Amino acid sequence: MGYCTFPIRYDAYMSKVRVAAFSVSLDGFGAGPRQDLENPLGVRGTELHGWFFQTEVFQSMHGGSGGVQSIDNDIAKSSFENVGAWILGRNMFGPVRGPWPDDSWKGWWGEEPPYHVPVFVLTHHARPPLEMKSGTTFYFVTDGAEAALAQAREAAEGKDVRIGGGVSTIRQYLQLGKIDELHVAFSSVLLGAGENLFSGIDLPKLGIEPYKTVAGENATHVFLKKK
Amino acid sequence: MGYCTFPIRYDAYMSKVRVAAFSVSLDGFGAGPRQDLENPLGVRGTELHGWFFQTEVFQSMHGGSGGVQSIDNDIAKSSFENVGAWILGRNMFGPVRGPWPDDSWKGWWGEEPPYHVPVFVLTHHARPPLEMKSGTTFYFVTDGAEAALAQAREAAEGKDVRIGGGVSTIRQYLQLGKIDELHVAFSSVLLGAGENLFSGIDLPKLGIEPYKTVAGENATHVFLKKK
Repeated sequence: MGYCTFPIRYDAYMSKVRVAAFSVSLDGFGAGPRQDLENPLGVRGTELHGWFFQTEVFQSMHGGSGGVQSIDNDIAKSSFENVGAWILGRNMFGPVRGPWPDDSWKGWWGEEPPYHVPVFVLTHHARPPLEMKSGTTFYFVTDGAEAALAQAREAAEGKDVRIGGGVSTIRQYLQLGKIDELHVAFSSVLLGAGENLFSGIDLPKLGIEPYKTVAGENATHVFLKKK
Repeated sequence: MGYCTFPIRYDAYMSKVRVAAFSVSLDGFGAGPRQDLENPLGVRGTELHGWFFQTEVFQSMHGGSGGVQSIDNDIAKSSFENVGAWILGRNMFGPVRGPWPDDSWKGWWGEEPPYHVPVFVLTHHARPPLEMKSGTTFYFVTDGAEAALAQAREAAEGKDVRIGGGVSTIRQYLQLGKIDELHVAFSSVLLGAGENLFSGIDLPKLGIEPYKTVAGENATHVFLKKK
């Protein structure tokens, strides 16, 4: 280790594009219908995340204490490890549609978002980068998913790029064949309507296969990767 | 108990219409595409049932010995308890389409099918009842799903009616609001195509909600019921 004198482009072989701790219902919905300011995750969308809200990881991320140490907690914890940059769809960043009226909307997460690394937001409308507390900077990318990924990879400096969501953003990267690993948390909830992760996507055809399933206390965690 | 002198129509309150041990993929498919004589469950459909094939219940049902005693086995076992009649879709009974050319097709299961009670097969083409060994008789019902259910209820004599499948038959009874309980076994498999159990059906709107999830060795068992 210490004697290695040639430059290693460690990002070239270590960096992965990951979806992690992404919650879906039994019927495949990653968000409920009719997303708006009151329902950032769509109607009943929060029910998908019950397993996560209870964890110590979630509680401490949001300045709380307590929370449960559990299988769900361990898995939630690992979803944040080695993440050097995030990519979010516009709707996951906020309820604003169309051109930004001003710079007042700064995400759902307050002054100190729980990312602590660069976050690339896919949008059709340009906006200057937004530096928040504790390491999170939001960059607004208007030239498409592949451009955002290139920028995120560079910003991640060899760590992983985590595609945070929402559903349509993940589907976009899946269809582009860009996702190396996915961890999907199935909550025992039926939504009946909303944004479906699987509908109309043939994941086996895209080379995505499950390789491990772990029963958590409040979700079934399925780990998938690209062959 | 012994002093009760008035006739109790016990079937009126004890009998349930159940779907049990019905296997689906993570992406919601209950059968693969292109069902035919070689692929009764569609292409890759058998992969959904790996959890069941390994159980002692399955092995002894098919005249074998051995098989695993496990959570999956206990759940498979309970799926057969208190079943007084079955309903199957035509395609679950066989690969023959259109009018029956003759009476030679007697189901996928040989001379001694694993039902041991009356089985009602939904079809558009009449055919005389088919009595098999060890208690199974196949009745061919041409006047629709509700008529088949009425006949099955009567034949079940107070026990439950189990809707065996396939997917379209279950969907039909769900949409008619006739199913009281469902047990869906999620296998950690992606099919990408085939017959989807959930697609386009709003189960919460139909009053169906999950109430229990059990992690088996090779499937996640979700139990749902009508509110």
